Amino acid sequence: MKIGFIGLGQMGSGMAARLQASGEPLTLFNRSPEKLQALIDQGAQAAQSLRDFADTDVIFTMLADDHAVASLVLGEEGLLAQMQPGAVHVSCSTISVALSAQLAEAHTRAGQEYLAAPVFGRPDAAAAGKLFLVLAGKPAIISRLQPLFDRMGQRSFVVAEAPEKANLVKLSGNFLIASVIESLGEAMALVEKGGVDRHAYLELLTSSLFNVPLYKNYGGLIADRKFTPPGFAAPLGQKDMRLVRAAAENLNVPLPLASLLHDRFIRLAAEGATSRDWSAIAKLAAQDAGLSS
Amino acid sequence: MKIGFIGLGQMGSGMAARLQASGEPLTLFNRSPEKLQALIDQGAQAAQSLRDFADTDVIFTMLADDHAVASLVLGEEGLLAQMQPGAVHVSCSTISVALSAQLAEAHTRAGQEYLAAPVFGRPDAAAAGKLFLVLAGKPAIISRLQPLFDRMGQRSFVVAEAPEKANLVKLSGNFLIASVIESLGEAMALVEKGGVDRHAYLELLTSSLFNVPLYKNYGGLIADRKFTPPGFAAPLGQKDMRLVRAAAENLNVPLPLASLLHDRFIRLAAEGATSRDWSAIAKLAAQDAGLSS
Amino acid sequence: MKIGFIGLGQMGSGMAARLQASGEPLTLFNRSPEKLQALIDQGAQAAQSLRDFADTDVIFTMLADDHAVASLVLGEEGLLAQMQPGAVHVSCSTISVALSAQLAEAHTRAGQEYLAAPVFGRPDAAAAGKLFLVLAGKPAIISRLQPLFDRMGQRSFVVAEAPEKANLVKLSGNFLIASVIESLGEAMALVEKGGVDRHAYLELLTSSLFNVPLYKNYGGLIADRKFTPPGFAAPLGQKDMRLVRAAAENLNVPLPLASLLHDRFIRLAAEGATSRDWSAIAKLAAQDAGLSS
Amino acid sequence: MKIGFIGLGQMGSGMAARLQASGEPLTLFNRSPEKLQALIDQGAQAAQSLRDFADTDVIFTMLADDHAVASLVLGEEGLLAQMQPGAVHVSCSTISVALSAQLAEAHTRAGQEYLAAPVFGRPDAAAAGKLFLVLAGKPAIISRLQPLFDRMGQRSFVVAEAPEKANLVKLSGNFLIASVIESLGEAMALVEKGGVDRHAYLELLTSSLFNVPLYKNYGGLIADRKFTPPGFAAPLGQKDMRLVRAAAENLNVPLPLASLLHDRFIRLAAEGATSRDWSAIAKLAAQDAGLSS
Repeated sequence: MKIGFIGLGQMGSGMAARLQASGEPLTLFNRSPEKLQALIDQGAQAAQSLRDFADTDVIFTMLADDHAVASLVLGEEGLLAQMQPGAVHVSCSTISVALSAQLAEAHTRAGQEYLAAPVFGRPDAAAAGKLFLVLAGKPAIISRLQPLFDRMGQRSFVVAEAPEKANLVKLSGNFLIASVIESLGEAMALVEKGGVDRHAYLELLTSSLFNVPLYKNYGGLIADRKFTPPGFAAPLGQKDMRLVRAAAENLNVPLPLASLLHDRFIRLAAEGATSRDWSAIAKLAAQDAGLSS
Repeated sequence: MKIGFIGLGQMGSGMAARLQASGEPLTLFNRSPEKLQALIDQGAQAAQSLRDFADTDVIFTMLADDHAVASLVLGEEGLLAQMQPGAVHVSCSTISVALSAQLAEAHTRAGQEYLAAPVFGRPDAAAAGKLFLVLAGKPAIISRLQPLFDRMGQRSFVVAEAPEKANLVKLSGNFLIASVIESLGEAMALVEKGGVDRHAYLELLTSSLFNVPLYKNYGGLIADRKFTPPGFAAPLGQKDMRLVRAAAENLNVPLPLASLLHDRFIRLAAEGATSRDWSAIAKLAAQDAGLSS
Repeated sequence: MKIGFIGLGQMGSGMAARLQASGEPLTLFNRSPEKLQALIDQGAQAAQSLRDFADTDVIFTMLADDHAVASLVLGEEGLLAQMQPGAVHVSCSTISVALSAQLAEAHTRAGQEYLAAPVFGRPDAAAAGKLFLVLAGKPAIISRLQPLFDRMGQRSFVVAEAPEKANLVKLSGNFLIASVIESLGEAMALVEKGGVDRHAYLELLTSSLFNVPLYKNYGGLIADRKFTPPGFAAPLGQKDMRLVRAAAENLNVPLPLASLLHDRFIRLAAEGATSRDWSAIAKLAAQDAGLSS
Repeated sequence: MKIGFIGLGQMGSGMAARLQASGEPLTLFNRSPEKLQALIDQGAQAAQSLRDFADTDVIFTMLADDHAVASLVLGEEGLLAQMQPGAVHVSCSTISVALSAQLAEAHTRAGQEYLAAPVFGRPDAAAAGKLFLVLAGKPAIISRLQPLFDRMGQRSFVVAEAPEKANLVKLSGNFLIASVIESLGEAMALVEKGGVDRHAYLELLTSSLFNVPLYKNYGGLIADRKFTPPGFAAPLGQKDMRLVRAAAENLNVPLPLASLLHDRFIRLAAEGATSRDWSAIAKLAAQDAGLSS
């Protein structure tokens, strides 16, 4: 099985390395080719253009946003035009529900296969093959590729046949994480203003009801007020809140908490710094309480 | 050491039973005396009035709200008037920061001791001695009573000397839990409207990033839409959101998410049913999305 | 008819002056007696204590908040204890619905009369007798005092017999005004960031759909970013949002917009300056958009 | 000067009739041609296709949304392709800031002129020539067409040269109106639950501080709970809140009140009825307070 991987950023590099370890031939493509070297040194091929994916069986894409995915796949001489009939596009990017549905339809019309396989986990989990994968698509295709998913993730979940539902679940998950960040930001601003040490407070929380890495990790960033370098950059969080709200509006689902979060990210963007972790929205509650940061 | 316990509701009964197992003499008081029988059968004394606590060394109180605590302690012939000098009042109720500060001052003026020791955990945890205790007060007093706290809880956390800070931490914790409920309610409404099964969705969440009893338990109630009988009744949740906001206003801390939650509970109260679990606020998001409940 | 007036602040001074012009004997009381001089020079009496109101027929009070009114009326040797049977207390202060109901009950028990008569209008309207009065109480008493109300206001509205309903209406009115301020603040931040001059924008609004002094006046303060000196100080606005929310919670009415406004005022308070007009909440939207103020 | 008018809905019909009264030759186009008859009877021409606008000097468009405008103008054989060099497109529709900027660029590239001229006012104001027009574009072009604008509106305001700024102002105005609706909805729910008649309450408001048609008209609809037939349909209000938030996000301006309003409209949409006036969002506050509607 010939495998392709497009998009070798922080997440994609780790995921591709896990796939390479399977021993199957791997072809890579990235806008900035210098990122490919480490994998090429271990035997992967560098594609010169998308044409080099013409005989690939399954192509993973892991890109930043809708715009990047849409131009890569649907643009002139894009991936859609290069893939052979029967080849599978596995889209791991966190994109909109609407674009995922559009890709599904385009690939089907072209006689190709399409799976959505967005992931949960930060770069270290990607490198360690410890991601969680959310899968949606034809059961037979998912089965066939399961060994590859097992290399990338510690567990994968099949949520539906319609691929875009995996994207909906992924976006909803990022909404839940952002909710955790906001709630911790407000709670810590409150107790700190009331004279309780925020690290001791976090220790209490994560030793009792919130004893789970998610709260420990984000709680730690917030207690330390350490928002650089970003593990997941604030503009990406903003994009996801926009996408979750767009999906919700299309489904007629009002989400007041998602709206609050979205406005938090817009406010962060107005401050100008785009290189902070998305947990930086937690500092807004502290700021509004008059706490020096 | 003579121990007293006042307030034998769902939580208090379990806590008092754990204390009784210590073998120390235990005197109990409850508005509805019938709740005492099981413990009396095992050797506890039933107080006829608060005067029976005149020679008690340490008295625990676990009552529903500020009103109940204030009348019990500060009312005419109240606990304050009965306690001997040097006796300790350990207040486990979830009450306002302001009342806790007032109690601290009143007991000090009367030559008595006061600790705040609110707890996290539902009735089953109370019965099993698996609560988490949040303690604030004089270190020497806390040390002396630590063996009692260890009978009631799996762990206790000392957060400050000023007792009311334990109440602030407790309220902030309930705010965090309510945030979890709201976020799960919105997320489940979204994915369900999008065609994803909500039990499968919950399984995905709690097998990956949210692998912790809090999300499993509340997520289960929400996915099952099973809000009766209440483990923690909605009016108590509403009271806690009111208290957390009052504490926040006194400290000049705006909490937009707490405000959203508070309004959710008020809306639930307007529906009239007061015997639901506080996780019932999660159904409002489903309702607003037009999902039948 | 002997008239008393207690509380000679910015509003009360103007109102008392209007009453004095009626020619009826007027007795005044204020915590800071120096404020009384101008009216005394024109023939009013200065009360030395509340005892001097023992033979007064109708006593107006215009004080800052619940605390001031409750101690004046219900405190030891307070107004309630001094008023003769049949005398009328007309409470013009913007106080809580709960306190107004409590005052009504206390005066009734003492064989006295009580009206609530909160007002709309800023100090210049008070001085010019151009206030709007919201009245609630026994129709016969209101009728008897109508000539006095007509001196103070350009129009008065009777809303109910239960006095506290006038306070509910007054608080709801301040909520509506604060909503205008917030909406203008957000709209101006938006168009200014988009490159439209905010004074030209205001001129457009107030020459078309919003052609009314309320929008002109507050819009002008916001466009000028001129929030001192206060016409109505921010802490009073904050108090009113707290009271409107408390009344709403007692009635089981969720008010998400009122909650948003309340948090805005708390945030303003956290900035520390308490001597700004309440329209200063409008600058928060500009601030969050990164506009220099 | 040959005039064209495209889009003869409730608003467009009135506007076109006002233009026709100028005596200039008028050519009309509408998707449903039956709406044109009245104006044709008075001498207007019906275009068979957009080609019939090839020699028109100025063409007004008044359509429902971005999609309608974009396909009409930018679609194959669209208006852009038909207009002669130097002809002016006056876009009166309430469309997104982004589309307006795109139209400006497209017309400029084609050697044509483009003005944005969105309007405030409901159908009766359109028919009476009493609209308010918000204009942006080249001053010379605006001057030349001023006599036409004067036929349609009681007043017009020039806000900028960049056409899309007029759209920003228009959207912000609809946000302000929706804010009025929401605030009245919450206030009326509160006082009604407190026992005050909502019509008497509205009379008080609009006889005092809110003495302006906007509050009278919308207040009347809300007090009457009469939301059909729509003067401005709820889905259009929802679209405008979406567009105002999109514009705000592009400019990095967080608008919490706009987000609240947007969620209100989404909730209304989930109820299923799309033929109500946008003021129907006001009933949600009453509903949440448990008031029967």
